[in-house]
Amino acid sequence: MNKRLVMASLGNVMLVEALLLLFPMLTGLYYHEGTTQLFAFIETIILLLIIGSLLSILKPKHARYTVRDGFAITALTWFVVSFFGGLPFVFAGEIPSVINATFEMASGFTTTGSSILTDVEALSQSMLFWRSFSHLIGGLGVLVFIFAFTPELGEGSVNIMKAEVPGPEFGKLSAKNKSSAKILYGMYFVLTAILIAALIFTGMKPFDAIIHGFGTAGTGGFSNKATSIQALHNPAAEYILSIGMIVFGMNFNLFYYLLKKEWRVVYKNEELRLFLIIIALAIGGIMLNLAPQYSSIEKLFRDALFQVTTIISTTGFGTVDFALWPLFSQCILLLIMFVGGMAGSTAGGLKVSRISIFLKTSLSQIRKSINPRRVVPVTMDRHWVNNTHVSQVFIYFGIYALVFTVALFVVALDQNDFMTAFSAVAATFNNIGPGLGNVGPTSSFASLQPFTKIILTITMIAGRLEIYPVLALLLPSLWKRKS
Amino acid sequence: MNKRLVMASLGNVMLVEALLLLFPMLTGLYYHEGTTQLFAFIETIILLLIIGSLLSILKPKHARYTVRDGFAITALTWFVVSFFGGLPFVFAGEIPSVINATFEMASGFTTTGSSILTDVEALSQSMLFWRSFSHLIGGLGVLVFIFAFTPELGEGSVNIMKAEVPGPEFGKLSAKNKSSAKILYGMYFVLTAILIAALIFTGMKPFDAIIHGFGTAGTGGFSNKATSIQALHNPAAEYILSIGMIVFGMNFNLFYYLLKKEWRVVYKNEELRLFLIIIALAIGGIMLNLAPQYSSIEKLFRDALFQVTTIISTTGFGTVDFALWPLFSQCILLLIMFVGGMAGSTAGGLKVSRISIFLKTSLSQIRKSINPRRVVPVTMDRHWVNNTHVSQVFIYFGIYALVFTVALFVVALDQNDFMTAFSAVAATFNNIGPGLGNVGPTSSFASLQPFTKIILTITMIAGRLEIYPVLALLLPSLWKRKS
Repeated sequence: MNKRLVMASLGNVMLVEALLLLFPMLTGLYYHEGTTQLFAFIETIILLLIIGSLLSILKPKHARYTVRDGFAITALTWFVVSFFGGLPFVFAGEIPSVINATFEMASGFTTTGSSILTDVEALSQSMLFWRSFSHLIGGLGVLVFIFAFTPELGEGSVNIMKAEVPGPEFGKLSAKNKSSAKILYGMYFVLTAILIAALIFTGMKPFDAIIHGFGTAGTGGFSNKATSIQALHNPAAEYILSIGMIVFGMNFNLFYYLLKKEWRVVYKNEELRLFLIIIALAIGGIMLNLAPQYSSIEKLFRDALFQVTTIISTTGFGTVDFALWPLFSQCILLLIMFVGGMAGSTAGGLKVSRISIFLKTSLSQIRKSINPRRVVPVTMDRHWVNNTHVSQVFIYFGIYALVFTVALFVVALDQNDFMTAFSAVAATFNNIGPGLGNVGPTSSFASLQPFTKIILTITMIAGRLEIYPVLALLLPSLWKRKS
Repeated sequence: MNKRLVMASLGNVMLVEALLLLFPMLTGLYYHEGTTQLFAFIETIILLLIIGSLLSILKPKHARYTVRDGFAITALTWFVVSFFGGLPFVFAGEIPSVINATFEMASGFTTTGSSILTDVEALSQSMLFWRSFSHLIGGLGVLVFIFAFTPELGEGSVNIMKAEVPGPEFGKLSAKNKSSAKILYGMYFVLTAILIAALIFTGMKPFDAIIHGFGTAGTGGFSNKATSIQALHNPAAEYILSIGMIVFGMNFNLFYYLLKKEWRVVYKNEELRLFLIIIALAIGGIMLNLAPQYSSIEKLFRDALFQVTTIISTTGFGTVDFALWPLFSQCILLLIMFVGGMAGSTAGGLKVSRISIFLKTSLSQIRKSINPRRVVPVTMDRHWVNNTHVSQVFIYFGIYALVFTVALFVVALDQNDFMTAFSAVAATFNNIGPGLGNVGPTSSFASLQPFTKIILTITMIAGRLEIYPVLALLLPSLWKRKS
């Protein structure tokens, strides 16, 4: 690892974070908050500026990035911004524990939405803004990670994703042509602005609309209400948010095509089709299962739509306490928790494209088992998916299961309820937010032990970065001076 | 599919089953049971003889087996013997429902050990014998399936296993040289006899020793006591059964080597090492976790040893109600439920060799992610495992997860408790026996809906035959006349 290069990069990241902290600081001033909040932000900004400047003036001997440098920078960035991002909460005394504050901001930057707050409404406006703003930043960060840094990082997790992102390779474009990247990030902000405007149009207060807009754009799910969307009593907003969550769960390449008016590509996109089919099936299944409990079919549809879209997009807003639903419906939600959104979106989970390759390969393998001579290649959007990519998908599933298991054991030492432990890992690793049981939608992660919170913080970041960069940090060979 | 050939083969299977039914019939006569049991066996035997003879005289146009024929025969055999094997219970009125009786005998022949009986001690001796005898037959059936039929079936699931079974290829040997096969099956019976003798030596009643010997040999787990081994209050027997379960969870090739005095091969065998390491780690973890609850370290060790060996070997005897253990220990048991025994044993689960390839590939892939140029081949017993085999392992895991999910949804419609539904599928699919919750070690599968029982019957057979043969039955192309 080129340590000077990595440290210099982290220094730059810290300078950017100092800049971003001006937004919540100004929010505090706008709402005439006291000096406690103001100083908390100022102290953090000064700290970031000092450490960031010291690190960023480090002169790397050479500026060539290797894969290991890219992995280290990416993984460490998420840890660093979460730690420093949590300091304003600590300095202002709104989240006294550093571990809790780091968890909360890691949850924000990874667009997870799991919270350790038992009374979210007690936070000041500036802190609420910063918390949700981290979803917007984190979502953009992920898009940058996927589309811009990817080609430079070479093989590994990111190539697995590249292999699955059909159509144009934004990565390639952006590396050579910064303007394509700008279009991509521009679309992200424009879509967010449209969403916020639509929410205000339904009668939502501007501040609430901004908070929930940020939460949707990053598919994060932080709310400024204790009972999330339920508190708003606004059916129109529920529909708009549902559509928003589907949109931000989609591959951003597709919006580029829409912008270029290439409808056919979008219409024919297999991953999009499967994504919408899964959503439709899940809604249908839940509606059939819940029908006896509802008198209004509109309310039934709305609740099913909202829960399915909020979970498959790994956002995690709440409108109903689905822990009270029958097990069949809960299993549907549990399954789509793992599916997640499309590749190239801000959503977490295993990703629809991987599920697609997984299902196709499995079927082809079963067919092949009774007819060994037959060769049934797996295709995606009419292109063959080569065997290396197929195995990378399956190996990803395996490594995913491995990390999941390890995290489950740690949480099991803390919590004695299977549903709580299992869903705490599922909700953080897939970047969803609330789990079930003691960490369910009407509860929080506050009651967990500090050590468990640290592990789940790592789990969130690992899930966000497709595991490899975080696991690579554990390899001694990463830290060796080689290149 | 060569339908005449498949039907003729099934006819032969039925004639063999008629023959095997003489054993429980004689047991009934020995214990001076009434005519009810006697006639129940005679009726079933006559039925099997008639149908079996009619089918077996069908002359196939040609006697060449294809993979699809092999798959169809194997999968259908397990269904047929379970259905007819259940009839004596129905005729004698000891299990009035055909679905329940089929479930019970499928559980027997697949060496699962899940039971629909709420009062096992109410059964007559002959029926208890038949139920446990099916474990012995089923265990042998699986060894035949793995070692004898394998080369003729060609590619598919069985080749995956072949690839993982290190050392000599019994399959090849047996196809050419029936005497090796005889040695193998001879060892199975000799080991069973030694085990039964050892159990009698501890003071166990001969009948109980036979029942539990059969249950261990097939790694099945049916007991003739309502509270399983717990009822025997026999610590020595618990140790002997623990050792027995480890032995029958081992690859039978290894015994062949021991017989040939090639200790080195056994000592160096990687799968065996991993199997024993997992057992040791699981026992250690449980002992640490349970230590505060125990005053005697011997009892603590014995309980941990017994539960770990009974579950990893997928036997499923009970000595303690582990549903009352803390979640950490339960998670250990849950994990080793999926690991299962070694390839080439009578145990179920994913198999240790697959876990080994899985772990090695995952680690090598993480290493490769930070150093793409490095090639880290996966080895097993110092031989390279080629990429095709590696992907077959991962695809097997995928298909396993797929079938598991589908079964879970069906059970979720019936049972509203996640632990019950999840563990019911895990316990049947991995051929273990008791689950947790409503299907826990102190309970039974009796309360499930008939449809759920049918699905779990299929799950047991699918798990037993490494999935492919059963899934292939669902493909319309299997039923086409082609060869």
